[in-house]
Amino acid sequence: MDTDAYLPPAVCNLIERQPSAHSLLREFYSDEEIYRLDLERVWRKGWLFAGHSCEIPASGDYFSLEVDKDSLIVVRGDDGQAHALHNVCRHRGSLICEDACGHLKKLVCPYHRWTYTLDGSLFHAPGMQEDLDKSKLGLKSVAIREVQGLIFVCLAESPLDFNPAGDVLSDFARPQGFTRSKVAKAVDYLVKANWKLVWENNRECFHCNANHPQYIKANFDHYNADDTSPRIREQIAAVVSQSEARWAAAGLAVTHKQTGMTSFPDAERNIWYSANRTALVDGYVSETMDGQQVAPLMGDYKDAEVGTVRMRTLPNFWNHSSCDHGVSTRLLPAGPQLTAIRVWWLVDANAVEGRDYDLSKLLPFWQLTSEQDWVICERQQRGVNSSAYTPGPYSTYKEYNVDAFVRWYLKQLQKP
Amino acid sequence: MDTDAYLPPAVCNLIERQPSAHSLLREFYSDEEIYRLDLERVWRKGWLFAGHSCEIPASGDYFSLEVDKDSLIVVRGDDGQAHALHNVCRHRGSLICEDACGHLKKLVCPYHRWTYTLDGSLFHAPGMQEDLDKSKLGLKSVAIREVQGLIFVCLAESPLDFNPAGDVLSDFARPQGFTRSKVAKAVDYLVKANWKLVWENNRECFHCNANHPQYIKANFDHYNADDTSPRIREQIAAVVSQSEARWAAAGLAVTHKQTGMTSFPDAERNIWYSANRTALVDGYVSETMDGQQVAPLMGDYKDAEVGTVRMRTLPNFWNHSSCDHGVSTRLLPAGPQLTAIRVWWLVDANAVEGRDYDLSKLLPFWQLTSEQDWVICERQQRGVNSSAYTPGPYSTYKEYNVDAFVRWYLKQLQKP
Amino acid sequence: MDTDAYLPPAVCNLIERQPSAHSLLREFYSDEEIYRLDLERVWRKGWLFAGHSCEIPASGDYFSLEVDKDSLIVVRGDDGQAHALHNVCRHRGSLICEDACGHLKKLVCPYHRWTYTLDGSLFHAPGMQEDLDKSKLGLKSVAIREVQGLIFVCLAESPLDFNPAGDVLSDFARPQGFTRSKVAKAVDYLVKANWKLVWENNRECFHCNANHPQYIKANFDHYNADDTSPRIREQIAAVVSQSEARWAAAGLAVTHKQTGMTSFPDAERNIWYSANRTALVDGYVSETMDGQQVAPLMGDYKDAEVGTVRMRTLPNFWNHSSCDHGVSTRLLPAGPQLTAIRVWWLVDANAVEGRDYDLSKLLPFWQLTSEQDWVICERQQRGVNSSAYTPGPYSTYKEYNVDAFVRWYLKQLQKP
Repeated sequence: MDTDAYLPPAVCNLIERQPSAHSLLREFYSDEEIYRLDLERVWRKGWLFAGHSCEIPASGDYFSLEVDKDSLIVVRGDDGQAHALHNVCRHRGSLICEDACGHLKKLVCPYHRWTYTLDGSLFHAPGMQEDLDKSKLGLKSVAIREVQGLIFVCLAESPLDFNPAGDVLSDFARPQGFTRSKVAKAVDYLVKANWKLVWENNRECFHCNANHPQYIKANFDHYNADDTSPRIREQIAAVVSQSEARWAAAGLAVTHKQTGMTSFPDAERNIWYSANRTALVDGYVSETMDGQQVAPLMGDYKDAEVGTVRMRTLPNFWNHSSCDHGVSTRLLPAGPQLTAIRVWWLVDANAVEGRDYDLSKLLPFWQLTSEQDWVICERQQRGVNSSAYTPGPYSTYKEYNVDAFVRWYLKQLQKP
Repeated sequence: MDTDAYLPPAVCNLIERQPSAHSLLREFYSDEEIYRLDLERVWRKGWLFAGHSCEIPASGDYFSLEVDKDSLIVVRGDDGQAHALHNVCRHRGSLICEDACGHLKKLVCPYHRWTYTLDGSLFHAPGMQEDLDKSKLGLKSVAIREVQGLIFVCLAESPLDFNPAGDVLSDFARPQGFTRSKVAKAVDYLVKANWKLVWENNRECFHCNANHPQYIKANFDHYNADDTSPRIREQIAAVVSQSEARWAAAGLAVTHKQTGMTSFPDAERNIWYSANRTALVDGYVSETMDGQQVAPLMGDYKDAEVGTVRMRTLPNFWNHSSCDHGVSTRLLPAGPQLTAIRVWWLVDANAVEGRDYDLSKLLPFWQLTSEQDWVICERQQRGVNSSAYTPGPYSTYKEYNVDAFVRWYLKQLQKP
Repeated sequence: MDTDAYLPPAVCNLIERQPSAHSLLREFYSDEEIYRLDLERVWRKGWLFAGHSCEIPASGDYFSLEVDKDSLIVVRGDDGQAHALHNVCRHRGSLICEDACGHLKKLVCPYHRWTYTLDGSLFHAPGMQEDLDKSKLGLKSVAIREVQGLIFVCLAESPLDFNPAGDVLSDFARPQGFTRSKVAKAVDYLVKANWKLVWENNRECFHCNANHPQYIKANFDHYNADDTSPRIREQIAAVVSQSEARWAAAGLAVTHKQTGMTSFPDAERNIWYSANRTALVDGYVSETMDGQQVAPLMGDYKDAEVGTVRMRTLPNFWNHSSCDHGVSTRLLPAGPQLTAIRVWWLVDANAVEGRDYDLSKLLPFWQLTSEQDWVICERQQRGVNSSAYTPGPYSTYKEYNVDAFVRWYLKQLQKP
């Protein structure tokens, strides 16, 4: 039997016991064994959002990230290409870069000065025997793709085809102008909840009315078949038709034209990426506290009324972008009940803080909405940990995407 | 084989190796596997003291408690009955109440507003499909009994008969007047020791001379067959006969008439509850620093000289009450080597702080005695964790109740 | 099969997969199961450095130490002999001494006053039954050897022969005068790295150039066959011949006469102890920041130019001593990725702080060098924890002792 395909009997048993269209059994959200399997089958198989091209504009610029205990360096090489390398010296395993980001000419291990070029090749190993085969001792590299300013990496030896995802993301990221952007702010969170609880929270707006007073003012996606009134239907139709009239030719017209969230993911066809443009509520041109533009227009936009772009890729990325700024969210697993989350705010590369934008106006909408969600996820984790927790039914009106996510996840777990 | 009756072979082996009349083998006090079994066989089977009726006088008043990872809500219903509910939404498992206590009209999950009545029935599940069977989605309830102001809960599906315990406790709690009391103060401790070490400490007064200078001034129970002098025998006989002369008719006479502790528990007959009234040393009318009364008389008492009431129930409760105040101690398991302990001081409901009692006089006796014991338990846990620890012999004079507790515990562990 | 000889299959598999002359597989540095085995096979088998005779000069003086969860007391008995005892009462397992050091006449358990003499015999057990066999209830004792002011203990029931080690250490410790010394300062560290990473760091000076700017000014051992220039060769030869001319008769001449580190350990013959005297760089008479003497001469020394003494014993001790002070380092395992380290600075017993020495001149050389190493070890641990880590090749020029240590370790692991 292919060891890679092997699932421990206890896990097979769990999968068999999992009721359909219900939240997962407790063990999936809490146990160390399942977490180890998630790392193998999801996190070290899929494409992970790492960061933005604008964070490493020049050769030698780098940032690091940690996927559980795996430290990675993403560095721009001498040829301008980004490289993703395991941050582990091939000599005795020391971390090479300890800083979260920086600039360097070569990667030099601080322990014994083994020196690597920016593509990871072992350049110099002073003090070692002359017959050392340097060609076999480069830093282990990881697949990487840059798509219109977004950087993805994959730890698998034989990565999934990235192109279909790249094409979809590209169509929406290009006009947004991430290649011509800069990071206005990034905030790190350590959320005491399993990464899947964070995704399930992201995959429905059922909770928005009770928890996101800011968000629901700007958006239509908390409405569903059960509560979209004729008035709401008229409102969104009006915005959509206006958008088509003005932007269809430029390829910027709204693509998701209903209330509710677009269907994502597609578990059966393993569609782990998606993007769309959707309408904001009348009076909102940006996801900000009062709906007003708070920074210069980004990318190709000539006008503020371009709705909002949404992108998401499993297992760790979503982005909401308005005419004037984009917000990226990256999840990284840090334990069975711990998720490291970074949220970035991006603006046009030429925008100057204080002159062109003000953090006190740029940040609150998504900072509040994000932090409201982290509180929810931590509270849910505590309840799920109870021996009395049992899976509950998903709303067919409002949690279709949560159900799709759970099905997608269970499929990944069972893939060799 | 009944899976419920299954004991892992390693645990069977431990039980076989356990020498009689000796402290337990290290694993019983330290290992995760044993702790999980203790939760199953002791904590989710037995009746647990939860709190006092006076903490939730009105409909909608509630408090929460945590038995390991199981969060429970104890709430007074619209009919005046107390209900014990698992604090876990039946939808996606979120905790419902995060506060330690409070007041509410309905139990509303903060995630998606599933709404439950105070008895746990699902009242409203907005946004769910119309064919949802609400009758099957109430909050899981837990058995509950209120006995003369003391509230007990049981997580088992088929709880043990509570009545024999209720009868015994009732006889002593009734005159003490807990139904007409209020909480003057509660203090929480997180003690780094296995819950059984805390009980073993409670089940003997062998350690009192060396550790409880305050306690031994007021009480007779640190004397045993080996060191009760004729003078002590005379003293206690005098107090007992005085008590009988004055209080027998009112049912308040001393019931435990010797030095030493009353026998408890009874492992062979599974007697996990007990109560008695015993004499205080001449000159003491209350368990206070100088033996003087520090608050108004409680309950049915007309006179301060009523000795001291003691109640205890396994696995998590003891209470010492004097004429003017009662002290309840509740243990809850928080890990293999961690016990969450709350100590409450109760006084008459009409007593007013500052006028009728002063915390600086009410608290010290039991605060000092309790904290002295927590230090002992943590020091013992550290020694027991040594690979050099081996079970040692119990004193037949002074540790008969520790031995009985250990036998009781091992019986519970082996029950399916 | 001898259960003691049993190695879990997963560990056998690891040992088989371990490539020679490479750093260890990740599991050896990180896993709980291996750590438990290290405790059994290395830490509870070998001789452990505990402390210095001068820390317990008088009867009743004691200090304690913790080997993982095993607390030990080292106490000077009424007969002047040092005793090593498990700090665990034979009654119910309480720790007896909680302080790191102190003085006492008897060992009295704070729980129930079981009282032991300083050699561990049970002297008095008040309140116990009369037929208690006290002779079987002494504190468990541990093998102990004092050699010229250095105290070693061994937790094994049948300890290895200490004499060969004692002879070697004695020759170097005697002239250094540890029996006539005092502790000027001791500093405790909790290093987040497996104890073997700390040893591997100690077993090479390959990392010195990049990490120890102070150390390399004073010493020759960072040079090896690949980089010892003729000029360096001349320098060391000059110092060595000077040393022989002056000190051979007194037995204080340099014994390690080359650059590079002396070979240690010898895995094949299980030589776990070694000591030597080596030359300091011209201009250095002490391992201090500027090479100058900073305290009165120790021991038998009549002159500052005695080079430097180095002693080391596996698994937990090294000492570097100059004419005027000695520095002892003791490792103790505190978890799979946690090592408790103490560094002591010793000076002549009659030296007076402020008058004869100043901590600001005594400490920095080894405080800096030690702390630089702890940073290295923690950084390496983080890299080794990556799933991408694989064992890397050791330098034949510079890491021969690391390789020897790894071979020694793997042999211990496989011994019953």
